[in-house]
Amino acid sequence: MYELYYWPGIQGRGEFVRLALEEAAADYMDVGREPDGMAVMISLMEEASIKTPSFAPPFLKHGDLVIGQVSAILLHLGARHALAPVDEAGKLWVHQIQLTIADLVSEAHDTHHPLGMGQYYEDQKPEAKKRSKEFCEERIPKFLGWFETILTRNPEGSDHLVGNGLTYADLSLFQVVEGLRYAFPNATERALGGTPSVVALHDMVADRPRIAAYLDSDRRLPFSEEGIFRHYAELDA
Amino acid sequence: MYELYYWPGIQGRGEFVRLALEEAAADYMDVGREPDGMAVMISLMEEASIKTPSFAPPFLKHGDLVIGQVSAILLHLGARHALAPVDEAGKLWVHQIQLTIADLVSEAHDTHHPLGMGQYYEDQKPEAKKRSKEFCEERIPKFLGWFETILTRNPEGSDHLVGNGLTYADLSLFQVVEGLRYAFPNATERALGGTPSVVALHDMVADRPRIAAYLDSDRRLPFSEEGIFRHYAELDA
Repeated sequence: MYELYYWPGIQGRGEFVRLALEEAAADYMDVGREPDGMAVMISLMEEASIKTPSFAPPFLKHGDLVIGQVSAILLHLGARHALAPVDEAGKLWVHQIQLTIADLVSEAHDTHHPLGMGQYYEDQKPEAKKRSKEFCEERIPKFLGWFETILTRNPEGSDHLVGNGLTYADLSLFQVVEGLRYAFPNATERALGGTPSVVALHDMVADRPRIAAYLDSDRRLPFSEEGIFRHYAELDA
Repeated sequence: MYELYYWPGIQGRGEFVRLALEEAAADYMDVGREPDGMAVMISLMEEASIKTPSFAPPFLKHGDLVIGQVSAILLHLGARHALAPVDEAGKLWVHQIQLTIADLVSEAHDTHHPLGMGQYYEDQKPEAKKRSKEFCEERIPKFLGWFETILTRNPEGSDHLVGNGLTYADLSLFQVVEGLRYAFPNATERALGGTPSVVALHDMVADRPRIAAYLDSDRRLPFSEEGIFRHYAELDA
């Protein structure tokens, strides 16, 4: 039994963990969404007996382990639920892709908060517009182009990012495409026009029975302007 | 024999890898700093036969492996050179700390480039000032405070971040303190006043024979306003 701790009401960074847990059909509780879940999470964050406290949610409790940072959580889940290769080289490659996805996610966040989290989006709109212009014109095509390149270079075929089976990197790339399409529909469709393997991978993941059931359930929260991928039409250059 | 590929002339993200290689007394070549090293690096980045190309430098070549992303490189080096615990929980915890350091490094970068890398610092100074204010007042104390907390909670004592031996996370925290002190001397000293264990860890790492020899050599590049940690007096709130 896993306990996932994350802010309720948003997909956010927690969603990368949820997708892995759902695909694995793992027994888990999304604690932040339970009654009093937030209070439990906050108290756990301040609990001195936890020797491995996380800097920020999400974190995953699994027996005695308390693991923070999405990429570290996925490293753990990937090994336990066959969502990563068993060989060292494959394991590192999946992880490297995940870390690059994490960088993309941070940049997507910064588009609406270039001056930091201390101010509302409404108070940094001109700066957000400048940052988003570069993100839409340079960064989205560069990241999606890199995913396309590694898919086409996969010696085992372009159906998966690594090897010939599903990994947590595939699940995360699905989520990135979902998020970018929500936040920056124009810029994203433009870029995806040149990355057919990325689109195919997204569709393959969406069709996996457990993922499809999850997306159709109320466990899947909607995107919103409280999360990381936010749609502000004025930023979609 | 390792080959490190990174931009010449700056410490940057490559420095976290260099510190681990130096502490391990590993045989490595800093390819970007060799004659024609940049040409070799660029051609390798575009070489279609590389099945695991990195999104950006640094990357490490080790036999058939080509590993990108600092945290993935350190995961590999940590296991090979006893710079991480061998048990799964310890390995994950060191990695989680490294990932949090990577987040801090990205935020430190964004202080001088809040609108993105497409414009010079000189063209985004007002925005850099706003972002740096929050970084100095909120983020530096929060990150350093978290390191202090985990040091004091370490069941094996506060000499190391994890367990009772040196890990790559210790080396990286040393580098973060060095970088913050260079870039934001006022804000950093203020915060370090409340984090004596972090200061002690920094000093312990600096005194390790191999690290001390490295810092004293011309292999250690100076900080500069081309790197990630840049000193602009006007940003040091």
